[in-house]
Amino acid sequence: MTPYSPGPRDARGVLAARILAAARAEFAENGAAGTTIRSVARVANVDPALIYYYFGSKSGLLEAPTTPPLLWMNEVGRAWAAAPRDQLGIELMQTLIDSWADDEIALTLRAALLTAAHDPSARIRMRTIVEGQLLGLVTGHAREDLRRGLIASQILGLALMRYVWKLEPIASLSTDRITAAVAPNLQYYIDLTLTPSNPEETP
Amino acid sequence: MTPYSPGPRDARGVLAARILAAARAEFAENGAAGTTIRSVARVANVDPALIYYYFGSKSGLLEAPTTPPLLWMNEVGRAWAAAPRDQLGIELMQTLIDSWADDEIALTLRAALLTAAHDPSARIRMRTIVEGQLLGLVTGHAREDLRRGLIASQILGLALMRYVWKLEPIASLSTDRITAAVAPNLQYYIDLTLTPSNPEETP
Repeated sequence: MTPYSPGPRDARGVLAARILAAARAEFAENGAAGTTIRSVARVANVDPALIYYYFGSKSGLLEAPTTPPLLWMNEVGRAWAAAPRDQLGIELMQTLIDSWADDEIALTLRAALLTAAHDPSARIRMRTIVEGQLLGLVTGHAREDLRRGLIASQILGLALMRYVWKLEPIASLSTDRITAAVAPNLQYYIDLTLTPSNPEETP
Repeated sequence: MTPYSPGPRDARGVLAARILAAARAEFAENGAAGTTIRSVARVANVDPALIYYYFGSKSGLLEAPTTPPLLWMNEVGRAWAAAPRDQLGIELMQTLIDSWADDEIALTLRAALLTAAHDPSARIRMRTIVEGQLLGLVTGHAREDLRRGLIASQILGLALMRYVWKLEPIASLSTDRITAAVAPNLQYYIDLTLTPSNPEETP
C-alpha cells in the first residue's frame, strides 16, 4: 500500500476511521508521551499532513480514540438502571469484565488509562467518563461525587492490575472469583452513608 | 554552572546523587516514554556520557529512582507488624497518607506508578514493591498473593486518583474522611477467607 491523499467524500470517512484505529492502538501501546503524529501516520499508512488535516493537532488526535462509544455508555447505563440497588456491586463488576472482553472497548479504555498518566486533558476526559457519564448513572445524584470517586478508585486500580499491568494472580483469576472478592467492596461504597463533601476541605 | 566531568572519588558520589534526583523528577513528571538520558542530563547539568558511565543505560537509570528507600520499607514493615490485625486497614491507609506527605517518597512512588504504565521492567519492580516487600509484611504468608493483589488494587487506584491524577473530591478530602471511607474495604480484604489460587485458572 502507498500513503493516501485526501480523496472524494466517502473515501475520506474510511481514511479517518483508519487513522482513528491506528491512533487508538498507538496510544494504547505507548501512551501520550510515546505517540507522535508521525508514528500514527506510519501505522495508518497515510501522510502525516492528512492527520493534521482531519484532527488539527496531537491533542485533537488524542480525544477521539480515548472516548468510549456513546452506544456502549448508554448500554451500561441501562443495565445499571435495571439492576436492584443491592446488586449494583455485582453489576459494576460484570460491566468491567464485559467491557474488557470487547476488543474495541478494551483498547479505548487502555488508551484512556495510559494517556491519563501524563496528559491533563486526557485526565479530565477520564474523569468525565468514569465519574460523570458512567458512575453518574449508578447513583443518579449529581452531588454524590465522593461516592463516585470511591467506587472509581477501586475499579481503576483493579482494571490497571488485571488488564493493563497484568499482575498475577489478579490477571488470571476467573471472572467468578474476582467478582466474588471485589463486588462486596463496591457495594459497600454504594451503601455508605456520606455527608456532602466540603469543597474548602484540605488534606 | 557548567557540566561536570567525572572527578575524584568523593565528588563522584555527589554527581551520582544529583543525577538520581534529576532522574526521579523527570520520570515522575514524564514517565519512561517521555524521559531521555539527554533530558535527565540537562536537568542534572551533567554531560550525558556521565550518565552512561554511572548507570549504563536508560533502563539502569530507571531502576534506582523508582525503588523506594529500604529504610522506609523497613519502617512500614515494623509499623504493620506492631498493629493488631483488626486495625491493619487503618494502618495501611495511614502508611499511604504518610508516604505521599514525604516529598522524596512521594516522588519515588509517582515515578514508579507513571513508568509502570509503559515499561515492563518497571511493572515488575512495582509488583515487587507493592506485593512482595510491602504487602508481604501484612499477611506474613508467602502464598497469600491473591489477598495482596486485592489490597494493592484498592491502594493503587486510590493513590492514582488522589495523588497522581488529583481528581476531586478524592484529592482534597481530609485524611480522616478518606481513611474512614476506605479503611473498612482494606480490612475486608485482610479478613476475607480465600482458597489458594489455581495457577492454571483462566478468566
